[in-house]
Amino acid sequence: MNALQIIAKKQAGNELSGSEIEYFITNYVSGHIPDYQMAALLMAIYYQEMSTEETYFLTRIMLESGAVLDNSSILQPKADKHSTGGVGDKVSVILAPLVACLGVSVPMISGRALGHSGGTLDKLESIPGFDVRLSVSDAIKKLRKNGLVFMAQTEELVPADRRIYALRDSTSTVRSVPLITASILSKKLAENIDALVLDVKIGKGAFFTRQEYALKLSDRLLAVSEKFGLKTSILFTDMDQPLGRSVGNWLEIKESLETMQGNGPSDLNDVTIALGAEMLVQTRIERHYDKAIRLVEQTLKSGAAYEKFLKVVKSQGGKVKYIERPSQYPTSRLVHGIKSERSGYVSSIDALKIGVLAMDVGAGRIMVNDQIDPKAGVFLNKKVGEYVERGEVLATVHTDMNIDVAALNARIWDAFQIVRRKVTAPDPVLGYAVKDGKCKWPPY
Amino acid sequence: MNALQIIAKKQAGNELSGSEIEYFITNYVSGHIPDYQMAALLMAIYYQEMSTEETYFLTRIMLESGAVLDNSSILQPKADKHSTGGVGDKVSVILAPLVACLGVSVPMISGRALGHSGGTLDKLESIPGFDVRLSVSDAIKKLRKNGLVFMAQTEELVPADRRIYALRDSTSTVRSVPLITASILSKKLAENIDALVLDVKIGKGAFFTRQEYALKLSDRLLAVSEKFGLKTSILFTDMDQPLGRSVGNWLEIKESLETMQGNGPSDLNDVTIALGAEMLVQTRIERHYDKAIRLVEQTLKSGAAYEKFLKVVKSQGGKVKYIERPSQYPTSRLVHGIKSERSGYVSSIDALKIGVLAMDVGAGRIMVNDQIDPKAGVFLNKKVGEYVERGEVLATVHTDMNIDVAALNARIWDAFQIVRRKVTAPDPVLGYAVKDGKCKWPPY
Repeated sequence: MNALQIIAKKQAGNELSGSEIEYFITNYVSGHIPDYQMAALLMAIYYQEMSTEETYFLTRIMLESGAVLDNSSILQPKADKHSTGGVGDKVSVILAPLVACLGVSVPMISGRALGHSGGTLDKLESIPGFDVRLSVSDAIKKLRKNGLVFMAQTEELVPADRRIYALRDSTSTVRSVPLITASILSKKLAENIDALVLDVKIGKGAFFTRQEYALKLSDRLLAVSEKFGLKTSILFTDMDQPLGRSVGNWLEIKESLETMQGNGPSDLNDVTIALGAEMLVQTRIERHYDKAIRLVEQTLKSGAAYEKFLKVVKSQGGKVKYIERPSQYPTSRLVHGIKSERSGYVSSIDALKIGVLAMDVGAGRIMVNDQIDPKAGVFLNKKVGEYVERGEVLATVHTDMNIDVAALNARIWDAFQIVRRKVTAPDPVLGYAVKDGKCKWPPY
Repeated sequence: MNALQIIAKKQAGNELSGSEIEYFITNYVSGHIPDYQMAALLMAIYYQEMSTEETYFLTRIMLESGAVLDNSSILQPKADKHSTGGVGDKVSVILAPLVACLGVSVPMISGRALGHSGGTLDKLESIPGFDVRLSVSDAIKKLRKNGLVFMAQTEELVPADRRIYALRDSTSTVRSVPLITASILSKKLAENIDALVLDVKIGKGAFFTRQEYALKLSDRLLAVSEKFGLKTSILFTDMDQPLGRSVGNWLEIKESLETMQGNGPSDLNDVTIALGAEMLVQTRIERHYDKAIRLVEQTLKSGAAYEKFLKVVKSQGGKVKYIERPSQYPTSRLVHGIKSERSGYVSSIDALKIGVLAMDVGAGRIMVNDQIDPKAGVFLNKKVGEYVERGEVLATVHTDMNIDVAALNARIWDAFQIVRRKVTAPDPVLGYAVKDGKCKWPPY
């Protein structure tokens, strides 16, 4: 067995054995197989795919490349949520303290923004002092104390995924069902959780623009999770328009604070509540889905999640004065409202265009090492289904950059569609994945 | 334009522009694009192929990555021959001095053996002292003086090909029509020749086991050659059985010496004469193919090529005593004749099995840095179409290794097929490639 033979076998469309996958991954991580052979294998996998069995082995061997969180001292059920990424997606910030209030222990290892998609870590770091670079032992301490912890991936956890992911990112091999599955699940399995809820976003601003591919991925995620005995639920949610009204790191934290105090936009509320209820059911904290929904709704309205979040910010070194008085946060040099050129109902807001605009005004990064402006972003004064008068503000751009205002206006007008006939706001939760690549709604 | 975008474009099956190919290759050679991105692109090309236009640009940019032989001081027409590789293929050793006798200047840059295929350089180096590592200026001097030179690729010529070829070899991306085309033609164009004759071998011991793929490659080679104004002819020759009777470096030199003195085996004679005649026609040394054939035949019989070769060996540092008295060459510890178990006509000799056997007894290398035993190899006492009596020797193995004789016998019996009915020797020249992926015979 050697690397070349394994590449050729997959290249020809044959199924790799567990020992072949193990040989390749372990020798890659130890430096005995070079990046270029891994790149060739990844591209062959891109074209030839992998079976569920192969995906399971890949996930297991990636997981075994590093340590697993030792959270045996925590008695509560453990669960986490993962999103495939979108524009304005601040659900994690709200959901983790929300379900922690209800008895779920949430070891949330998150990622950073790249391209038009936001990243939970960047959002949290817009709070001055907030520290996400925790050691595993420190993270466990905070998790035990607060019921949740927000952290970045460390050197100890799933090193195979970190190395392979960086390579996929620079070789155009991100979009592959088995590779995405192994990447998500190896990281989540390393958190040593009992249940996982996945938010698979579909639409213009999502990784998946078509439902077909999302269903295929979901089917694989469910099949591989089952082999590990990990209880996994998958929700499909809408990413045709951005989630909530805020896009940009601090703007999203501010909106999260409002939501945790019971004043969130309805689509953000709905997605958060659906995911939260699912976590309660999967961890058996609440058996009945309807009851779980009501429980999560009540908790969100009560402001308990806000209190929990305040505690977490303090515990992770963040300055609470901005949490308590968000108006004291620095504002952008330019805060420009783009007015509608006509009256009518907003029928669509292109999430991709808004995401790219937010990135361009400073909220995101194109290259891994780009600096982010935490204040920058786009606020949507109008959402799909809402009526706008000619001259009313559609959206507000926050930026420190010298940007041509006429160009900003044009980009917002281009992202919004306004029609005469009445439009109803779309349901942000599209359905739940069930086996064999199908989607159903309602979930139970 | 960046490397990732170019990979993604080819990955999706789109045609790359000349500037995109140039960007990728030049940045790769200068070290600004890493091996792993090139590996990903090569695998994408393997699956998505390239058009003739793309292949032309790839060839040109690879060629332009290095120097071109400055042979302007040589007034004779310049031509070379390239073979796709086979078992017992010593044609270059004979052909170069043969056509040099007839006024063709032959700057022959050759390769080494890898796997079951032989390499001209290894054959020549079985002559003690023979030096193929010549600088470009030294090679030009020898070429002017002798009418031919045998040399290895240097650092100055086509560095892009050297680096890309090594990468293809370790990423399972050798078998690709555009990549093979660009690799062959960039190297041959760097020789600054007027005409090129390609020997594309088809059969069990060849790179191409089926004619279909060989025709596809030939069509591309002709199309791209035409764009460079390089006169190229392609012959398809048989590699179901080994060419000639000798497989192994010194054994093949010995057989070449016999052939240059007019005593070669008929299949080796036929292939050499067909290729030689083609070179005379392409260089306009002889206009009529039939006359060219007769001219080459007569020259081969005359022994002039042998005298020329002797001169070249002397000029490149080789010990001529072994050329003049081959019987003085050291012999292997074991010289074992494998006897036939039955009487009949030899209907086939599996060239791949013989090639692998020769490699296993010391004549070839599995890894690039393996040592070769120049004495080792296999001599075929019987060829396809010949009658063998039970107890007569089929083949003779030469080796210094401690090899189980029973196992050797079994491998030879397995490689030979012997039947009752009379079998005629196959024609070793299968045809000539003409445009649009077709093959014709006779050539004119």
